[in-house]
Amino acid sequence: MNVVTCIAPINIAVIKYWGKRDDDLILPVNDSISTTLDKDHLCTKTTAMASSDFKEDRMWLNGSEQSMDNPRLQNCLRELKKRAQISEEMQNWKLHICSENNFPTAAGLASSAAGYACLVTTIAKLYKVEGEVSELARVGSGSACRSMYGGFVRWFMGSDPKGSDSIAKPIVPVSHWPDMRILILVINDSQKKVSSAQGMKRTLMTSELIKYRIDKILPTKINQMQQAILNKDFESFAELTMKDSNQMHAVCLDTYPPCIYMNDTSHLIVDLIHSYNATSSKIKVAYTFDAGPNATLFLLEKDVPEFVSVLDHYFPSIENINIEYKKGIAIETILPSKNLLEKINFTKQTAGKLKYIIHTRIGNGPEQLSDCKSHLLNSQGLPVASLITNC
Amino acid sequence: MNVVTCIAPINIAVIKYWGKRDDDLILPVNDSISTTLDKDHLCTKTTAMASSDFKEDRMWLNGSEQSMDNPRLQNCLRELKKRAQISEEMQNWKLHICSENNFPTAAGLASSAAGYACLVTTIAKLYKVEGEVSELARVGSGSACRSMYGGFVRWFMGSDPKGSDSIAKPIVPVSHWPDMRILILVINDSQKKVSSAQGMKRTLMTSELIKYRIDKILPTKINQMQQAILNKDFESFAELTMKDSNQMHAVCLDTYPPCIYMNDTSHLIVDLIHSYNATSSKIKVAYTFDAGPNATLFLLEKDVPEFVSVLDHYFPSIENINIEYKKGIAIETILPSKNLLEKINFTKQTAGKLKYIIHTRIGNGPEQLSDCKSHLLNSQGLPVASLITNC
Repeated sequence: MNVVTCIAPINIAVIKYWGKRDDDLILPVNDSISTTLDKDHLCTKTTAMASSDFKEDRMWLNGSEQSMDNPRLQNCLRELKKRAQISEEMQNWKLHICSENNFPTAAGLASSAAGYACLVTTIAKLYKVEGEVSELARVGSGSACRSMYGGFVRWFMGSDPKGSDSIAKPIVPVSHWPDMRILILVINDSQKKVSSAQGMKRTLMTSELIKYRIDKILPTKINQMQQAILNKDFESFAELTMKDSNQMHAVCLDTYPPCIYMNDTSHLIVDLIHSYNATSSKIKVAYTFDAGPNATLFLLEKDVPEFVSVLDHYFPSIENINIEYKKGIAIETILPSKNLLEKINFTKQTAGKLKYIIHTRIGNGPEQLSDCKSHLLNSQGLPVASLITNC
Repeated sequence: MNVVTCIAPINIAVIKYWGKRDDDLILPVNDSISTTLDKDHLCTKTTAMASSDFKEDRMWLNGSEQSMDNPRLQNCLRELKKRAQISEEMQNWKLHICSENNFPTAAGLASSAAGYACLVTTIAKLYKVEGEVSELARVGSGSACRSMYGGFVRWFMGSDPKGSDSIAKPIVPVSHWPDMRILILVINDSQKKVSSAQGMKRTLMTSELIKYRIDKILPTKINQMQQAILNKDFESFAELTMKDSNQMHAVCLDTYPPCIYMNDTSHLIVDLIHSYNATSSKIKVAYTFDAGPNATLFLLEKDVPEFVSVLDHYFPSIENINIEYKKGIAIETILPSKNLLEKINFTKQTAGKLKYIIHTRIGNGPEQLSDCKSHLLNSQGLPVASLITNC
């Protein structure tokens, strides 16, 4: 049967990608480094099916049918066909694609990276494409190439104008740093944002500071970050992560008109983390922000219960039986010590500033699901009845 | 009688001062340019009195007595005495100083510049100090030196390690650009902020981007701004002002831990102004932000009624008989045209995001008040009963 289903993870950059030197091929102006998150908690699942019976290419995303006119999607599919190892006849069969996230779209978590990583992985299997395919994911959505591997991943900007060397490579696998944990704080927000594609284009055109970041700061920093990961040096990793996030948002603010992604709550989270870290002689928690207000925090497993007790104290949740406030890996509930709270220079916030939190870990890259029950398309090539998927 | 009363204006920088190369002498890392605001709407008034009857130096600020231990104040007074042209006997007389702002302190408008400019002007008169005294105001509070002149003012960073050439000089007087108007939007805010003195120190120590701003960007920009002012080229003035404000806040964000002064409402104002400017082929309004959330806007007199009608539409005020929402120069009330509102890509906000607005113009430097009724100290050297002053 010509059907394949795969799942692919999202990734969070700790040295950010912001700016393209080629808009069509999505070639970045700097190397970036990311962590791949566990697919148990955040992933995209995609089923692709090819059949001589299909009249046209069709695609469903999160339950609704989408146009396939998107030029990036067409670029991806064309490149996949070029490298296909299947008969010409089969290559001419029309495709049905169905894709789902296991997390709400409304969360504002960037899903295009997982989406394109999953699409490329799935169709590459279907077409029996061999070798490195992160380049193909990159053509769909730049940072998607980093979701093609697990653990800690580096996307090399490369120098080939055609982009053949602008690919992702793993730095270390999941097993290298097993006690690294991630908390995603989903923030209530309603403000409109400039899309990251538009934002980075505008930054590159108008920011004076980004030139210095690219030429003078990042070449050193990317290697420092890689070394911190290799050494499992949490404090260096954390400091580099926070500084790089701040600097990316600084060049966004230096853009004209400015691009603003963090909001007042994001900045309160930053403030709480610096105040919390200041209570001990060690950096225990790091934050990073992408093109939206949500915070992604890095911390070691041993520090999760204490930090979450502090977070719960200062950012109380609204009791709501309809929403599971804490998702992902279970967290031991403790109360923060009075002594600790006295040392933290921060004001308790009104309830409900955070929508929910996800506790997860570093995970592996995309994988194929062999169980035929996992397909999102039925034998007629139409989406299965239940669209609530559990990867 | 040994008593002098003066008033001094506040000033708003359009090329920002952010970073000291000498903390004690307050020597900046770059030149800055500011506009002096009309004292009719925003000013500090100071009375200084010397008498052989006084037992000790005493000072009252906004109605409450303050310690005079402050090292910056002591530096100022010592320098003023060095240059005094009065008898040694009189120099040994104790001083009483009383100072008031004609705007609420709670507004979050930086008052230290006007405060030190007024103090230095007043005591310089009392001590018959001659010549350039902006250097002395600078020692009290860096940007105070710019409040020593009216119109558009440039503070030269200088190169003398002792600071003798780090002084303010007028670029053009008030009369040069009579139709320039200023709107100050005072924003409701409760978040704690890092003081500007601490903030700029931290930025200089930790930001990687500020080095590039100082070395490569500002030397060109300061001259472009001066030229825009000389040419009365509003659009260049406006664009340079907005970009410099954004860049100052960008290096604040690139600081570790980051210093955040603008809040969500500040960014909404920025967004509205870009949306409004985009409706015509001209830049009509510019924004700038100091170390706090309040916006200072520059626009030409002819554009005030239309812009304020747009502002009122998108940022409605709360009806409150206790607060005069629009202060300063009266503004003709008009309704924005439907056609204009349709072109503005912005969402109407909930009422009360702005506390009040002040409409003012460019003004002159400090001046001495000759009417003896204007003194803030009575013949015994104590604050007069009524502390609500009208400059």
